[in-house]
Amino acid sequence: MLPSSALDFFTALVGKENLYSDKAHLIAYSYDATREKFQPDAVLFPRHEQDVSDILKYCNEHRIVIVPRGAGSGFTGGALPSSGGIVLAFEKHMNKILEIDMQNMVAIVQPGVINMELQRAVEEVGLFYPPDPASQEYSTIGGNVNENAGGMRAAKYGITKDYVMAIRAVLPNGDIIKAGKRTIKDVAGYNIAGILIASEGTLAVTTEVTLKLLSKPKMTKTAMGIFSSVHEAMEAVYKTMSSGVTPVAMEFLDNLTIRAVEQVYHKGLPIEAGAILVTDVDGNLEDDLDFQLGIIAKVFSENGCNEFKIAQNKQEAANLWFARRNASQSLSVYGSKKINEDVTVPRSALPQLLEKFNAIALKYNINIPCFGHTGDGNVHTNVMVDGKNPQQVKIGYEAIKEVFQATIDLGGTLSGEHGIGLAKAPYMSMAFTPEEMALFQSIKRAFDPNNILNPAKMGLS
Amino acid sequence: MLPSSALDFFTALVGKENLYSDKAHLIAYSYDATREKFQPDAVLFPRHEQDVSDILKYCNEHRIVIVPRGAGSGFTGGALPSSGGIVLAFEKHMNKILEIDMQNMVAIVQPGVINMELQRAVEEVGLFYPPDPASQEYSTIGGNVNENAGGMRAAKYGITKDYVMAIRAVLPNGDIIKAGKRTIKDVAGYNIAGILIASEGTLAVTTEVTLKLLSKPKMTKTAMGIFSSVHEAMEAVYKTMSSGVTPVAMEFLDNLTIRAVEQVYHKGLPIEAGAILVTDVDGNLEDDLDFQLGIIAKVFSENGCNEFKIAQNKQEAANLWFARRNASQSLSVYGSKKINEDVTVPRSALPQLLEKFNAIALKYNINIPCFGHTGDGNVHTNVMVDGKNPQQVKIGYEAIKEVFQATIDLGGTLSGEHGIGLAKAPYMSMAFTPEEMALFQSIKRAFDPNNILNPAKMGLS
Repeated sequence: MLPSSALDFFTALVGKENLYSDKAHLIAYSYDATREKFQPDAVLFPRHEQDVSDILKYCNEHRIVIVPRGAGSGFTGGALPSSGGIVLAFEKHMNKILEIDMQNMVAIVQPGVINMELQRAVEEVGLFYPPDPASQEYSTIGGNVNENAGGMRAAKYGITKDYVMAIRAVLPNGDIIKAGKRTIKDVAGYNIAGILIASEGTLAVTTEVTLKLLSKPKMTKTAMGIFSSVHEAMEAVYKTMSSGVTPVAMEFLDNLTIRAVEQVYHKGLPIEAGAILVTDVDGNLEDDLDFQLGIIAKVFSENGCNEFKIAQNKQEAANLWFARRNASQSLSVYGSKKINEDVTVPRSALPQLLEKFNAIALKYNINIPCFGHTGDGNVHTNVMVDGKNPQQVKIGYEAIKEVFQATIDLGGTLSGEHGIGLAKAPYMSMAFTPEEMALFQSIKRAFDPNNILNPAKMGLS
Repeated sequence: MLPSSALDFFTALVGKENLYSDKAHLIAYSYDATREKFQPDAVLFPRHEQDVSDILKYCNEHRIVIVPRGAGSGFTGGALPSSGGIVLAFEKHMNKILEIDMQNMVAIVQPGVINMELQRAVEEVGLFYPPDPASQEYSTIGGNVNENAGGMRAAKYGITKDYVMAIRAVLPNGDIIKAGKRTIKDVAGYNIAGILIASEGTLAVTTEVTLKLLSKPKMTKTAMGIFSSVHEAMEAVYKTMSSGVTPVAMEFLDNLTIRAVEQVYHKGLPIEAGAILVTDVDGNLEDDLDFQLGIIAKVFSENGCNEFKIAQNKQEAANLWFARRNASQSLSVYGSKKINEDVTVPRSALPQLLEKFNAIALKYNINIPCFGHTGDGNVHTNVMVDGKNPQQVKIGYEAIKEVFQATIDLGGTLSGEHGIGLAKAPYMSMAFTPEEMALFQSIKRAFDPNNILNPAKMGLS
């Protein structure tokens, strides 16, 4: 509970309309996409950067915990106030696109801007912001930056960190800093923006982001390959990616996922197929797209692809994408509880990774349907169990631990895009040495000596 | 001076053949491209990562300064042992390409590998490592990473940081850490690789780097545009870069630079031209290259380009590039001392920046020829004075301070690619607030509490 003096201070600072402390609102800000719940003591809506600075300075002096929050769409609890304190929310005021600079191909935005809103605004003027997390319709740029969000187009265009040129932020002591510039090159001083990206709101509060934009490619084409085995499909993935073309997306569904989508939607999907790959290519010339698709078709056919379809129009493209876009929600046919992870390995390890997952599923007698962003080695791994059966849930978490171990053994990472937050904190010691954890901890202390900013996340104290 | 006990420890550790402490060798390791000189107390050649760890642990316990050094080709003194101590050099042992992983399009190299050696090795197997600093024939990947080196191809392909996937490093206390993975995505833990890049060897010693590779584009074409005014050329630069094509390089020479090259080489250059732009485009299809050149030709002609030449073969391309490649060394016609900086601004500010430089040159009655990587806003700015005339040198440094101020006023940075080191340390307070400098200092302390690693660089203590 916050002392009333603190509530008085905040009310005087931001106005009572920008402070929630009633039960209903506190509950509304107590959860995220993990479905875990932790109630904050208050929710504050800063009007501008100076409010953020004043709030942090006060909280630092009074040792009050602050948890910055985007849309609460995270899968790992990064925005959950697990130690209570104040949730800092940006959707009321700090949610503006401040500038689209067409001459320098840069956008400057506040943290509360929704990803898709930015994409639409820049596309209207012929520009392109590639990072497209599945949450793009509601997740915010502030959250995207703090989790270093990925997406379907990462295979060609990279992830959020590849577009962040500068970050304005407030340190826990209230200091306002700017890291980076509206320039492609900048090597003066430490790369503070680099360390703030993916720091899950544990080091500073982001108040403004400068993002690199690209020219919007004039056209996109979609193709789908149907494979008899998942092993061959995974071989086709890494061979395509090293073939000289770089597809925008190279997404996959395994047999269990195909069957689930078919069971729910009855689209006539090939339920005997070992895997489906869906791919997009883009560019400015029809010939170039056909050149790319030609290479992909060749690599696919040399690696067990039985059927290769190229969409001839937008409707056909949407049809080819249907199964992939509806994969996640279809998986409930396998159980009421889905423990979904986003492990990522070097692409050449994908065939082995999926074999290992298969062995884990057999060992525990559970289903582990997989789909995802194989173009960058990122597999959405879904351990499905009966959520009402505690024994099943226990088995599910044992299987997940083996999923992580298999991933790490193949040179992979606990998380390709969801982050660590609370959900994966227990597994950090599998992935990092005590020396590496000690370094994380000393960086946390350097920014936040009183540990007021999003404490207990990422396995840090 | 090192105590003899330290020399004994190091001799026993690495062998006497890997320790230099004689006068001649100490002098050989006392300088870099700045021509400043600071003699180290010893030079050590670690055989492997464990040597680096043992050396740092000992030095940390005994408070002995360590300065990691690549090829000593830096322009800002980053590798100079300005506080004495030990120079750590990698050219004897830790200079191997450990692996070129074609399946994942990744190279794993030791810090002493020379940039061009890596470029050649990966091109032999059809892959591509884009960062190409002017020092590429001798500078090392370790140095490139620690300075975040750029190059001509940055306009399209970005800079060193865009290719670093993972770094193995030794912390000042001897701890060995690995930051990052052989995966495109990795959001577990803080982005340590991100903060190590461009840290100028002040935070950790790099022992291994994992670099992203691309497929080598099948073809490149070169074109040159001759402009009557530098202002129009700079307009053409930013308009081209936002036109929907992204040239590999977009380099420029101003009138003074054109005249200098002509005076030295007599190539029939257009000495009345306000500026020359030289550009490369690349791709896999002839049509695509012609499409790109068509757009560039159009933008150029709309912005004061009098003559546009497209090279028809390699020899013609080399001719178009001749003036740019020989710009730097030709400038001595304007004076014996060149104070050369690598300021960078948002591209749209280039016309104003060059106007301001012109005003500074007029004010001090000196020549400031400029050339460089305008495709990314990076201008090599050369204040030319008579090095034997102390009054002229003093004027030169007054002019440089105004060059930095003009750059900062236009949203630019002190350094696009050379770093801060010693040479630009006095100007850090022009570019960063006391709060930002305090943050840099606290990060330095978090990694290196005893300040043994490359102290006094970047304006830090």
